Amino acid sequence: MLKVSRYFEDYIVGAERRTTGRTLTEADIVLHAGQTGDWFPHHVDAEWCATQDFGQRIAHGTLILSVAIGMTASEINPVAFSYGYDRIRFIRPIFIGDTITVTARIAGTRDHPRRANQGFVDEQVMVTNQRGDVVLSLVHIYLVERKSPAPPDDTPPPGGD
Amino acid sequence: MLKVSRYFEDYIVGAERRTTGRTLTEADIVLHAGQTGDWFPHHVDAEWCATQDFGQRIAHGTLILSVAIGMTASEINPVAFSYGYDRIRFIRPIFIGDTITVTARIAGTRDHPRRANQGFVDEQVMVTNQRGDVVLSLVHIYLVERKSPAPPDDTPPPGGD
Amino acid sequence: MLKVSRYFEDYIVGAERRTTGRTLTEADIVLHAGQTGDWFPHHVDAEWCATQDFGQRIAHGTLILSVAIGMTASEINPVAFSYGYDRIRFIRPIFIGDTITVTARIAGTRDHPRRANQGFVDEQVMVTNQRGDVVLSLVHIYLVERKSPAPPDDTPPPGGD
Amino acid sequence: MLKVSRYFEDYIVGAERRTTGRTLTEADIVLHAGQTGDWFPHHVDAEWCATQDFGQRIAHGTLILSVAIGMTASEINPVAFSYGYDRIRFIRPIFIGDTITVTARIAGTRDHPRRANQGFVDEQVMVTNQRGDVVLSLVHIYLVERKSPAPPDDTPPPGGD
Amino acid sequence: MLKVSRYFEDYIVGAERRTTGRTLTEADIVLHAGQTGDWFPHHVDAEWCATQDFGQRIAHGTLILSVAIGMTASEINPVAFSYGYDRIRFIRPIFIGDTITVTARIAGTRDHPRRANQGFVDEQVMVTNQRGDVVLSLVHIYLVERKSPAPPDDTPPPGGD
Amino acid sequence: MLKVSRYFEDYIVGAERRTTGRTLTEADIVLHAGQTGDWFPHHVDAEWCATQDFGQRIAHGTLILSVAIGMTASEINPVAFSYGYDRIRFIRPIFIGDTITVTARIAGTRDHPRRANQGFVDEQVMVTNQRGDVVLSLVHIYLVERKSPAPPDDTPPPGGD
Repeated sequence: MLKVSRYFEDYIVGAERRTTGRTLTEADIVLHAGQTGDWFPHHVDAEWCATQDFGQRIAHGTLILSVAIGMTASEINPVAFSYGYDRIRFIRPIFIGDTITVTARIAGTRDHPRRANQGFVDEQVMVTNQRGDVVLSLVHIYLVERKSPAPPDDTPPPGGD
Repeated sequence: MLKVSRYFEDYIVGAERRTTGRTLTEADIVLHAGQTGDWFPHHVDAEWCATQDFGQRIAHGTLILSVAIGMTASEINPVAFSYGYDRIRFIRPIFIGDTITVTARIAGTRDHPRRANQGFVDEQVMVTNQRGDVVLSLVHIYLVERKSPAPPDDTPPPGGD
Repeated sequence: MLKVSRYFEDYIVGAERRTTGRTLTEADIVLHAGQTGDWFPHHVDAEWCATQDFGQRIAHGTLILSVAIGMTASEINPVAFSYGYDRIRFIRPIFIGDTITVTARIAGTRDHPRRANQGFVDEQVMVTNQRGDVVLSLVHIYLVERKSPAPPDDTPPPGGD
Repeated sequence: MLKVSRYFEDYIVGAERRTTGRTLTEADIVLHAGQTGDWFPHHVDAEWCATQDFGQRIAHGTLILSVAIGMTASEINPVAFSYGYDRIRFIRPIFIGDTITVTARIAGTRDHPRRANQGFVDEQVMVTNQRGDVVLSLVHIYLVERKSPAPPDDTPPPGGD
Repeated sequence: MLKVSRYFEDYIVGAERRTTGRTLTEADIVLHAGQTGDWFPHHVDAEWCATQDFGQRIAHGTLILSVAIGMTASEINPVAFSYGYDRIRFIRPIFIGDTITVTARIAGTRDHPRRANQGFVDEQVMVTNQRGDVVLSLVHIYLVERKSPAPPDDTPPPGGD
Repeated sequence: MLKVSRYFEDYIVGAERRTTGRTLTEADIVLHAGQTGDWFPHHVDAEWCATQDFGQRIAHGTLILSVAIGMTASEINPVAFSYGYDRIRFIRPIFIGDTITVTARIAGTRDHPRRANQGFVDEQVMVTNQRGDVVLSLVHIYLVERKSPAPPDDTPPPGGD
């Protein structure tokens, strides 16, 4: 795995990266149900699903989320920390055999309200299926060290309102 | 698994539920690294971790999130849909052998900006370790059917700005 | 998970509960073969199975049993202990893609031959496939605390002869 | 894997086989909880277990059973079928790190009440830990073809009373 | 598992053994990608594979190798040690649903260049699919104790040139 | 994952890359025993291992091999194909908790004996533990497209004798 130190000032708003694809399988759902203990019939009861509008088993939202985030973890940045996620939305279901691809775009950078030596980088993550439909979107917030300190300001905390 | 139809009007702000505990193990981290493909040394290289401030391998944020959400999936509500999550924050690391417990509290209900027959229910999810420290927090947003329609209003979409 | 203290006297003979369904997958068989080390061709060799009467890979008996028992583990009873199982019978094969549902009925209660403060509760467990055929049956024996002691009697030990 | 045709007449009452050992690990418990959906705190909550008499996480009964049966599946007998198990008893808990060994002894053979060309073979299975304590016992019932038919008799069905 | 002490002198060149078959599944590929961290689209992206000459997802070479070697591990020989492998060749792809069988033949025995009490045994391992095509071949080298010492000679080291 | 087309002519003999570390866990061994069906006591019986010279459970050779190869699969080269491995040697055991790092060095390039548009690239793979001891070594042979054809020669096939 590559280790590259990218500082707050190094992030370019609009810069985008795109992963290769990954097919989500029945095995992924079984393993995720196993790891999380979520055996809701929506995910593991094919007979019942056949009687519902969606018609077949659907992947757990946390499975799509976890795999998508993992797919973007291609490069280690020693000066960045995963601070959290905002506005995770489950837009379309993922069925067994669908293939997801992840696009991550630097959506913006923000000063930290109190720390002069760190800033927030917002990465817009979009997960699409093989038809190009967006199935999940979220904002991944990184707390990143600055090369040179910035004066504290009064920006509200991330995701705040 | 229990199936209970809880409508928008049935949710009581402040109502709280608490799970039993679950110990996060080395096996959980290995399985989650396997499912997500995230083999960052923070999670799987004990030697390197020993040289860092945190000192030992830490669980993936998506592992804690997925397990915590799964721990709250104890009851099927046929009239509610998982809409998304807001303000996921990784507050403290979870180490191998830590035991997490999840508390979920109905934080609020909101009309849907356009749909009169559905509303949003915000559930504040707090994950604590065996010392009672909060390690992860998020808001789980459910889209829930109403028993009786409400007049559309102009509330901004959830998590919007 | 719910914790409910049900004492020996609380069990009502004939009381029945029914689970949601679960589809048994190829992944379940692969994982169970992996956990148990049972790689008999009946479970993992599709080519050979196609030459046999049953025609396709069949789930391990211990897989159906373990999953079925797990599906009934929905509520924690602090005053009951799993004592054992009697008369486990493999009645029909389960194939990949079959969906099982479990029905558990309190079949009877028995005094403990020596302990006045505990009794045996026999739960008849029936596993059915999506066509309603019974595929596995067993009696799950619980050793349960009594609210009030019963005089020892000379009932033979459970499953004894 | 060896394939050896052993007919009803070939089984010698008292014949015994003994497996090598297997250490049951935290990973086995996590995987079994995952496969079965049984996340009872007895198996996965180390903190709560520390407050109980048994003091630490214990393996699922179905895990010990499944692994033990798998350990005895060393030889394929094309003329024998697993009919069921009788008198499964959980005698002692298995903790993480305990090593189990399985001894299987032909306890008896019985005619089939109706089928002249098959008989029942009862194999007494004993699972012991590293201290030689019996932790689980059961009778594995095989339905085995005969070389030469036997006249139907009036033996009661297996495990019956 | 059988334990049989086979000494260097006991190996007969040309002796051959053949395993039962095993169907390689989508779950095997997902689990192996998980264990190894190799998520190359050749193994996990069905959409991309459909655009390639091979047309569908293919098993990892290390998966076929690991499973094949495991399938030959049927008998414990306390006086033999796995020294290494030579000339592993990936001859044909294995697709999801293919069934492999392994044939292992003692190809030769060689003195150890320096140790009089041990010798090398070369086992030719051939993995075939359900059509009988060879998909993988290798030489498994065992270092085996001798019953009686042999004079050191000047044979070059195994696989050397 | 990066996709970079490296042709035969692009490989520089002596070029070396080094991975981050990965700690091999009890869970890895349990999962690999599960995937391969190799439950030899050397890997899964802690009690028996304690009576042997090596003193504790050791990782499967195929586990170290598979993980090490996976750790080097960091970049997709559309014009290279994994042809095979030569001279795999198990030099030291890996115990639970050991951390491996992989170094891969281009050891040489060779014309293909018959194909003018492809050549062989030999990559020497060395796996070391946390003390820097080499535990496994092998040569990974890639078949790589050439930018410009080379005249066929009479080089013996790779790993030949």
